[in-house]
Amino acid sequence: MLLLRRCRSLTRLQRHQAAPCFASRAVRLCSSSTEDQRSHQRANWSANWKRIVAGVLTGTGAVVTYGLLHQEVEQADAGLPTTERSSSLPVFSHDEVTKHRSLEDGVWVTYKGGVYDVTEFVPIHPGGNKILLAAGGALEPFWALYAVHDQEYVLEILSQYKVGELSAEDLKKQGEAKASDPYSSDPERHPVLRINSKKPFNAEPPPEILTESYITPHVLFFKRNHLPVPQVDPASYRLQVEGLPRGALTLSLKDLKTRFPKHTVTATMQCAGNRRSDMNQVKEVKGLNWGISAIGNAKWSGARLRDVLLAAGFGPDVAKWARHVHFEGLDKDVTGSAYGTSIPINKAMNEDGDVLLAYEMNGEDIPADHGFPVRVVVPGVVGARNVKWLGRIVVSAEESSSHWQQYDYKGFSPGTDWSKVDHASSPAIQELPVQSAITVPADGAQIDRSDETLTVKGYAWSGGGREVVRVDVSLDGGKTWQVAQLRSGDKGQPDEPSPPPGRSWAWKLWELTAPLPPDADELEIICKAVDNSYNVQPDTIPPIWNLRGLLNNAWHRVKVKVTED
Amino acid sequence: MLLLRRCRSLTRLQRHQAAPCFASRAVRLCSSSTEDQRSHQRANWSANWKRIVAGVLTGTGAVVTYGLLHQEVEQADAGLPTTERSSSLPVFSHDEVTKHRSLEDGVWVTYKGGVYDVTEFVPIHPGGNKILLAAGGALEPFWALYAVHDQEYVLEILSQYKVGELSAEDLKKQGEAKASDPYSSDPERHPVLRINSKKPFNAEPPPEILTESYITPHVLFFKRNHLPVPQVDPASYRLQVEGLPRGALTLSLKDLKTRFPKHTVTATMQCAGNRRSDMNQVKEVKGLNWGISAIGNAKWSGARLRDVLLAAGFGPDVAKWARHVHFEGLDKDVTGSAYGTSIPINKAMNEDGDVLLAYEMNGEDIPADHGFPVRVVVPGVVGARNVKWLGRIVVSAEESSSHWQQYDYKGFSPGTDWSKVDHASSPAIQELPVQSAITVPADGAQIDRSDETLTVKGYAWSGGGREVVRVDVSLDGGKTWQVAQLRSGDKGQPDEPSPPPGRSWAWKLWELTAPLPPDADELEIICKAVDNSYNVQPDTIPPIWNLRGLLNNAWHRVKVKVTED
Repeated sequence: MLLLRRCRSLTRLQRHQAAPCFASRAVRLCSSSTEDQRSHQRANWSANWKRIVAGVLTGTGAVVTYGLLHQEVEQADAGLPTTERSSSLPVFSHDEVTKHRSLEDGVWVTYKGGVYDVTEFVPIHPGGNKILLAAGGALEPFWALYAVHDQEYVLEILSQYKVGELSAEDLKKQGEAKASDPYSSDPERHPVLRINSKKPFNAEPPPEILTESYITPHVLFFKRNHLPVPQVDPASYRLQVEGLPRGALTLSLKDLKTRFPKHTVTATMQCAGNRRSDMNQVKEVKGLNWGISAIGNAKWSGARLRDVLLAAGFGPDVAKWARHVHFEGLDKDVTGSAYGTSIPINKAMNEDGDVLLAYEMNGEDIPADHGFPVRVVVPGVVGARNVKWLGRIVVSAEESSSHWQQYDYKGFSPGTDWSKVDHASSPAIQELPVQSAITVPADGAQIDRSDETLTVKGYAWSGGGREVVRVDVSLDGGKTWQVAQLRSGDKGQPDEPSPPPGRSWAWKLWELTAPLPPDADELEIICKAVDNSYNVQPDTIPPIWNLRGLLNNAWHRVKVKVTED
Repeated sequence: MLLLRRCRSLTRLQRHQAAPCFASRAVRLCSSSTEDQRSHQRANWSANWKRIVAGVLTGTGAVVTYGLLHQEVEQADAGLPTTERSSSLPVFSHDEVTKHRSLEDGVWVTYKGGVYDVTEFVPIHPGGNKILLAAGGALEPFWALYAVHDQEYVLEILSQYKVGELSAEDLKKQGEAKASDPYSSDPERHPVLRINSKKPFNAEPPPEILTESYITPHVLFFKRNHLPVPQVDPASYRLQVEGLPRGALTLSLKDLKTRFPKHTVTATMQCAGNRRSDMNQVKEVKGLNWGISAIGNAKWSGARLRDVLLAAGFGPDVAKWARHVHFEGLDKDVTGSAYGTSIPINKAMNEDGDVLLAYEMNGEDIPADHGFPVRVVVPGVVGARNVKWLGRIVVSAEESSSHWQQYDYKGFSPGTDWSKVDHASSPAIQELPVQSAITVPADGAQIDRSDETLTVKGYAWSGGGREVVRVDVSLDGGKTWQVAQLRSGDKGQPDEPSPPPGRSWAWKLWELTAPLPPDADELEIICKAVDNSYNVQPDTIPPIWNLRGLLNNAWHRVKVKVTED
């Protein structure tokens, strides 16, 4: 089938000034048994790609994904005579290229003067069919948006599809139209942040700074953007609330602030990929290589989603059919589709759910990187559902059909690889499991034996409003355990009042000062937390390893050296 | 202080026909340095006992507790000349004994013709001050109630306190009054049950039978009684609902059935001590030695607690101060105090909480062993809060002060022993963590290699309404994992409809049929479950070991032999 399509594609190509050598390649591709093998190889490779890309999110896991594709390319290349690719290719005009903007007519793109027929690549593109937006034109502006393409092996993959050269005249014209950088208006960030991806911006604070304050300052709060930060004018901002029998309700920022009571919740937010780097060390996974600081705790203020939905007409009749609430951001991608996701209706409408349409973070307007002017805050639930730059809310009988709900942010068995993954078999991550990590000392730190005592610090949190009730710390690799001191406020300050059961949205900071074990030259320090449902963290990472590197909540371990001086 | 009390006690004794040798013992106890050491030893022992007994529940952990006391006795005994205990003792009349019924007058008891001054033992009695009920009389009827006393070392402990002999005449009279067996009217039980304690009755079904049916028949459902089964006449049964501003509401069984809608919930119930036997193998714990079958799944029908509380006057004013709902059973102990416990108010009043005052189990009147005529069913919450033979409900600002709420059914760090335990530091267990176990094959089973495939079966469940979404099974000790098939109904029958998020109260049964690994002579089979908050089970037991042996939800492992024939 793939071979057939390739033959068709090449037949099309022959119609367009195909040079003899290229035509002969086409003939060989369609006939020779060597070529059959190669096509079979490519078919396998393509089939694998399809599976590989299924769960990959534009601008996130794509770095790793492209890495995997790269391996496949290399394997496939083994059977390709290198001379073929160095052959001179036909020259196309810009007009000729623009005629290939669909799967029927072929999907052609240009890049730095080359012309590429990527028709076959469309179904296996890690970013989905967004690639069609570039059809018939230059790739450069799109690759500027998704900086993940800025990798040598992405070019290698592209080179597989080269069918010609752009005419010198058209190439010159293209060069004159400068590709704008969609990230140019992203806000400035604090230099202390450790950057996992620049475009889109994803960064986390150093662990030892993270737990210096119970409330995380917004500049230090991890940033996890899927797209450029949208510029929103607060005066013209409108939130659409849809799916209810009275029709859409449109709310200005002022409406949100004045028509609904202001509600404040201290809630910890964590990325599902927090601690992915440790999972990556067990076996490569796809996604940004987060350390242990893709988590933060803030005071969020805003209108309660429940109040807004009630004002928009939510009532007993709606309760009969409504099952989910969708959120869409204003951070639209190049196809014009917004970042989107959904939560179950019971979380949205439960009086104890505390879901906010937040316009303040830590007592100030929500900063641009965190969703200005309005973000959803879904306490106890994975960061991915806390949609920033909120533009639209839809009450629905169905879960969001977005990529991020259906094909990402799901957990799988360690035995599930990209060849077997069935996204429908696994529920979208909502509440997160119990978690903790050691922020002080750092892995590899040196401890002076003359100190006699050692202080270990960290954070602990659980999803679903479950309160962390205990953190056990071991200084001997898990043989013996001591109970750490927990606090719900800054050191030396009184704790925040205890929330009612099921509404414990904020983390605990913890600390243990213990005698330095005598005679040990190296210590393996471990922490593990227990929540009030007595859920605990698993001992090790391999049994919870999953192909996207999500949900790493195994015991956190750091090793330190004890030195004499 | 203890020494002083002992001297006072002996001084009192001297007033009552103390034999010279005994008086001289008293003098020695009060003066000599050897005796000081011994007293110190006894004081330490006594102090340890106080800690030991703090968390121990009459009729449950007491067997093990008495075992620990026994060790302490032996240590303390090491310094006691044996000649002292063989000395002849004074003879007391029954009337004389009855004068010692308080801490001021001393607490005397008789047992098989011996007279014992147990004043000092009162504060350290594992069963608390219930011992005072026997003050001034015979122990036999009380020990018949709490069969845990039927241990040789309990007699050794008692012997420490012997102060005399009962007169032959009174002994004869006592013998004529036969001690009645409070368990004589307990219902008949199915012989297949594995009995962990006869009096009170505690038993579980064999694992391989447990998972034969999705709904556990009541005869096979684990029984966990704290006391004799009360005989309740359904016609005169009354439920008291108290603590609300309108005063007490009294409901007959008919009221419950006719004044409130009948609501049916399929819910799994699990004892906090399920799988304790495996924890016991790591290090001895206190409590009944449950296997993996202290869990069952039933259809419960009854009035919703929420509806009953609303009818009793629960409203917004009450919501301002009410924090807990207490439940008391009709299974009263010899002090007249009922089995009691409490749950948080939000679980009771939440529309999605599904707490029932159940009068049916699997479509029939609740059987005597399971709480006839009414038991509370608190879905997603530990068995201990599902009070049977319900007599009284109290809405309160405070948690129940009962032993079972404050000093039992709490989890602790593996580093916490009885000398350090602070029960106030740990929350009462309510929701249980994610759990699973292998019911087929049994540990130690032999598998025929010619079978080629192996079928593994089990159950999986999580507390708090969290649905089990995956069970991973390993046949190679955790190196590789396969995903089991889950079901919510009997094999070959359609699954029960999926409950809404947060209301998944019932277990999943699971099964995996996989090729028998070639060449393996022994397989270590492991299962682990994941719930929809993506909480997982911990790998091993030692890091979750706790002194009461509760909450064992580590991976379940069985080893089987592969044989050639």
